[in-house]
Amino acid sequence: MKTPPRMSRLLIVGSVAFDDLELPTGKHDNVWGGSASYAALAASLFTPIDLVAVIGEDFPESQLDTMRRHGVRTEGVERAKGKSFRWAGRYDATLSTRVTLDTQLNVFADFRPKIPGAARRAPFVLLGNIHPALQLEVLEQVEKPRLVVADTMNFWITGEPATLKKLLERVDVLVINDEEARQLGDHHNVSRAAANIRKMGPKHLVVKRGEFGALLFDPEGTFFAPAYPLEDVLDPTGAGDTFAGGFLGYLAHVDAVGGSVDRAAFRRAIVAGSALASFCVEDVGPNRLLTMTGQNLRDRLGAFKALVHVEHELDALTFLR
Amino acid sequence: MKTPPRMSRLLIVGSVAFDDLELPTGKHDNVWGGSASYAALAASLFTPIDLVAVIGEDFPESQLDTMRRHGVRTEGVERAKGKSFRWAGRYDATLSTRVTLDTQLNVFADFRPKIPGAARRAPFVLLGNIHPALQLEVLEQVEKPRLVVADTMNFWITGEPATLKKLLERVDVLVINDEEARQLGDHHNVSRAAANIRKMGPKHLVVKRGEFGALLFDPEGTFFAPAYPLEDVLDPTGAGDTFAGGFLGYLAHVDAVGGSVDRAAFRRAIVAGSALASFCVEDVGPNRLLTMTGQNLRDRLGAFKALVHVEHELDALTFLR
Repeated sequence: MKTPPRMSRLLIVGSVAFDDLELPTGKHDNVWGGSASYAALAASLFTPIDLVAVIGEDFPESQLDTMRRHGVRTEGVERAKGKSFRWAGRYDATLSTRVTLDTQLNVFADFRPKIPGAARRAPFVLLGNIHPALQLEVLEQVEKPRLVVADTMNFWITGEPATLKKLLERVDVLVINDEEARQLGDHHNVSRAAANIRKMGPKHLVVKRGEFGALLFDPEGTFFAPAYPLEDVLDPTGAGDTFAGGFLGYLAHVDAVGGSVDRAAFRRAIVAGSALASFCVEDVGPNRLLTMTGQNLRDRLGAFKALVHVEHELDALTFLR
Repeated sequence: MKTPPRMSRLLIVGSVAFDDLELPTGKHDNVWGGSASYAALAASLFTPIDLVAVIGEDFPESQLDTMRRHGVRTEGVERAKGKSFRWAGRYDATLSTRVTLDTQLNVFADFRPKIPGAARRAPFVLLGNIHPALQLEVLEQVEKPRLVVADTMNFWITGEPATLKKLLERVDVLVINDEEARQLGDHHNVSRAAANIRKMGPKHLVVKRGEFGALLFDPEGTFFAPAYPLEDVLDPTGAGDTFAGGFLGYLAHVDAVGGSVDRAAFRRAIVAGSALASFCVEDVGPNRLLTMTGQNLRDRLGAFKALVHVEHELDALTFLR
């Protein structure tokens, strides 16, 4: 009996790491982190994931098991000699800014992503924030993806402009934060910066604005989704990666159930990503992403809807002039 | 023949001033400014206004004429001996921060608001950002207003806490910015700060977040309206006052046409205020408020709707867990 080839839907490449977090509420060492961890755990609510990353000898097998239980395939997670990638950071009392205290690349320094056979046919690809040359290497290995989503950061924008430029020509959706958008788009006005970035390749630009929500710029205009105003934010680490994972996970899900990955789906994907990010910040590290259920998300999506809902037509107004 | 007593709908008390503005695009001296000027011009699109303020001998009669042509009654504008209130400020290149270069109170130093007879019966009252003792004096002179909206600033929050506390007990809607909300509510988390402020008196709190929109906190929950992402922002001066004027002007209009000033109307009022503020910043001083029409606003309200519109139910989603 021949086993049918398994379907790959969403490939996520990025970092899996340990974070040492100094939060205003306390210190937490050896927290499971990394852009790909957050993105995969978020997206796994919607669709099975193929994860490609590197871990060191110190990364517990039990955490890989946890990922697998959440529908994340880990064939592409390479265990290398040495220690896992580590990041240490300290947040200010308001959680609005953070400083990096330490970065140890460790096994990540020599990482060359190798995409397993089945994952090469994934129609959706999320390139987490790693060196743009590695992001390009991933694209060399995949077969005609339908949608490529990429994240990047200031470090690559200033340090690797030529490689980043090559990458951007092959990216459909760039997901970056406000400051990165202003820097890459070379304009303080985010709408103008967005127009400049979209000329570099990505048809769609998503600008993450933390507690102020997210903007989507596309060929037809602009869409805005707020962040959910939470009373208890414990740890913002990974919120942006969770957003990106939730965003693309939702689109992969729409496609899997025969829906159309169109502009309307993109808007819903932004809301889905924002909702998932609002869970991520409620607990330390990815803890909340591990405990939350689809019903939790469904409830919060209802709250999101209420948050921006206007009951009545404003455009039928009469004016005095 | 007896003239029927004229109906007063919206009383606005605040400053009328000259501003010297240093914008990244150039210097502009003697620009017509003041919180009450912006609020009145914005609100006048919806409803007739009674304005109470003080001007000096230098304030041109032609600008009072302009206000009157826009439906602003100026009986309550007192012309005092001396110079008008002046403010000078410089914006940074991104228009995101500004420094005050000079403040000259002039005739404003001895201002004691005197509310004309008809205006004392206005059901809607907007107390612009002036000394809370003066805001209280206005409330002593009016007859049972239906809705009192007030603005304040850091200067009074730290300098006049006792007087401000007395005022807040008599205010229905407080409209302040993000930083002021965190300071007055004594919490960095805006939702928690809002809950604290609402215990001080105002049932409704509107938090203005500039280019990031506005939040409404009320007994039933939270509402969010984005700011419109403009490509050309020339001068942010007065945007917050324009927002407050548009907000209350819209509610006065709803009431005048027999509508219900309920939660749904408040939400629409936030959107109307945000839309008007998006015009204000397009030109220097209040220029754009003078040239814009109801049709302009109607068109932008349509664009606002498109900005947050999600076409499809997200809460019917199926999840993997």
